[in-house]
Amino acid sequence: MTATADTGSEVPLRTLFFLSCSTGITAETLGHSLMTQFEETPYQQVTVPFVDTFAKAEAAVQEINRVATDSGLPPVVFSTLVDPRIRRLLAATDCVFFDFLDTFIEPLERELEVESTHTVGRSHGMVDYDSYMARIDAINFALANDDGIRADHCDHADVILIGVSRTGKTPACLYLALQYGVRAANYPLSEEELAAERLPPVLEPFRDKLFGLTIDPERLHQIRSERMPGSEYASRERSSLEIASIKTLFTAESVPHFDASSLSIEEIASQLFQQTRLERRI
Amino acid sequence: MTATADTGSEVPLRTLFFLSCSTGITAETLGHSLMTQFEETPYQQVTVPFVDTFAKAEAAVQEINRVATDSGLPPVVFSTLVDPRIRRLLAATDCVFFDFLDTFIEPLERELEVESTHTVGRSHGMVDYDSYMARIDAINFALANDDGIRADHCDHADVILIGVSRTGKTPACLYLALQYGVRAANYPLSEEELAAERLPPVLEPFRDKLFGLTIDPERLHQIRSERMPGSEYASRERSSLEIASIKTLFTAESVPHFDASSLSIEEIASQLFQQTRLERRI
Repeated sequence: MTATADTGSEVPLRTLFFLSCSTGITAETLGHSLMTQFEETPYQQVTVPFVDTFAKAEAAVQEINRVATDSGLPPVVFSTLVDPRIRRLLAATDCVFFDFLDTFIEPLERELEVESTHTVGRSHGMVDYDSYMARIDAINFALANDDGIRADHCDHADVILIGVSRTGKTPACLYLALQYGVRAANYPLSEEELAAERLPPVLEPFRDKLFGLTIDPERLHQIRSERMPGSEYASRERSSLEIASIKTLFTAESVPHFDASSLSIEEIASQLFQQTRLERRI
Repeated sequence: MTATADTGSEVPLRTLFFLSCSTGITAETLGHSLMTQFEETPYQQVTVPFVDTFAKAEAAVQEINRVATDSGLPPVVFSTLVDPRIRRLLAATDCVFFDFLDTFIEPLERELEVESTHTVGRSHGMVDYDSYMARIDAINFALANDDGIRADHCDHADVILIGVSRTGKTPACLYLALQYGVRAANYPLSEEELAAERLPPVLEPFRDKLFGLTIDPERLHQIRSERMPGSEYASRERSSLEIASIKTLFTAESVPHFDASSLSIEEIASQLFQQTRLERRI
């Protein structure tokens, strides 16, 4: 069980349980998404994954009852449990029970005109060997083509992210590999390449795979300062100059690009799918 | 819009739409989780992220109506749209509309005794600068301590995964960094270190951070063969020998460990949280 506190105000601290017969990722995704609509409500979370036996379910029931008694507030339970008997056991405890499967499975059965299999959720399980290997290959590809590319690899690249250093290229490439099996390389432009305001010759053959990331110069200065405080590299002047040059280059060479300043890693990936013909491999 | 076909049988192909005002990741996670209960139903998926204006909502309505007409089957729409007016527009189209927010928000409002904010979903947005930097730092840490550790870094490690090569250590470390901001290093034991069946001296000071991964020798042989087919490194004999040695080492040195053969990257991470005192940083 993993608990994270998120408190600090006078509103009573609510405990959220995420119960799953698998990793708990779906239950957490649902719960976190709903809780973004209740920003003022402080909560702590307890994730209980792999609840696939009665013994584990009973341990979870005891924990929920304990929290209910200690806090005087019924815990909110988000469940993706599949086994109906385990679900009934949990739903009967002193809690507010949100049953993700039960809520949606029945209408979905009606619409799809087939009965659900009630198999234990494997939405984050090892689906098959091929997609496992596609992820691993994409990760190895991202690692081998991080911070510079190998020209002999780039024929196999799905996308090559370019930009000045510290614009989020590396995390975006790793995320694309892990989540979507996409082979993403990245190439940071050097000071000399930026000054030229032309595409470096090494990238020329892969023009149709290039995508550019830019960032607000002030934010770039802030991020670089965390890494190398007080350096010329992190200075406001250098940051502004590099961003001005890269924007000129992107425009002159017609490289599609967007500003990633206020985007999370997930949002950068989603935007790439939206703005390119990039396709998921898993 | 991204489409993936998943077909091949005579059952009519259903189209699933994932609509979101943000990345669509929550809608996809929830929808995919439900569809694991309908394994025999072939479907193709269309993800429509960033639906945050009426114009984009109307474009989505047209696309849904087009699919409904062309296929003769109402598409199944999974929505995490927050804006009630946009939601109403979509719910009125010729589709089966599953509204993840609407379904749970009202009972949650009653229980938490506060009104939801109806702000556009930011569950995968850039939450704040500190957690963004924690992710980036953890990714850099994983990259700097992949396939071998830097002893001066390991004081800052949250966990150090050890095992023979190709047991999933690198993807697990990157996933822990990206999803949870956890600083995870990994150390592959060399043939000499395995033969010694003792902990390598470099790992000795970090004993309480070590966690071991093992794997079925046949699967290890399979994975290594993809990379270096026919090599001694990939042979059944070598794979069996290495796994036998590492298990002896884990037992002799009391290193906690589990078998990762049938686990996805997500499941390895979940098991680590379960079996260690590892805590999320974001």
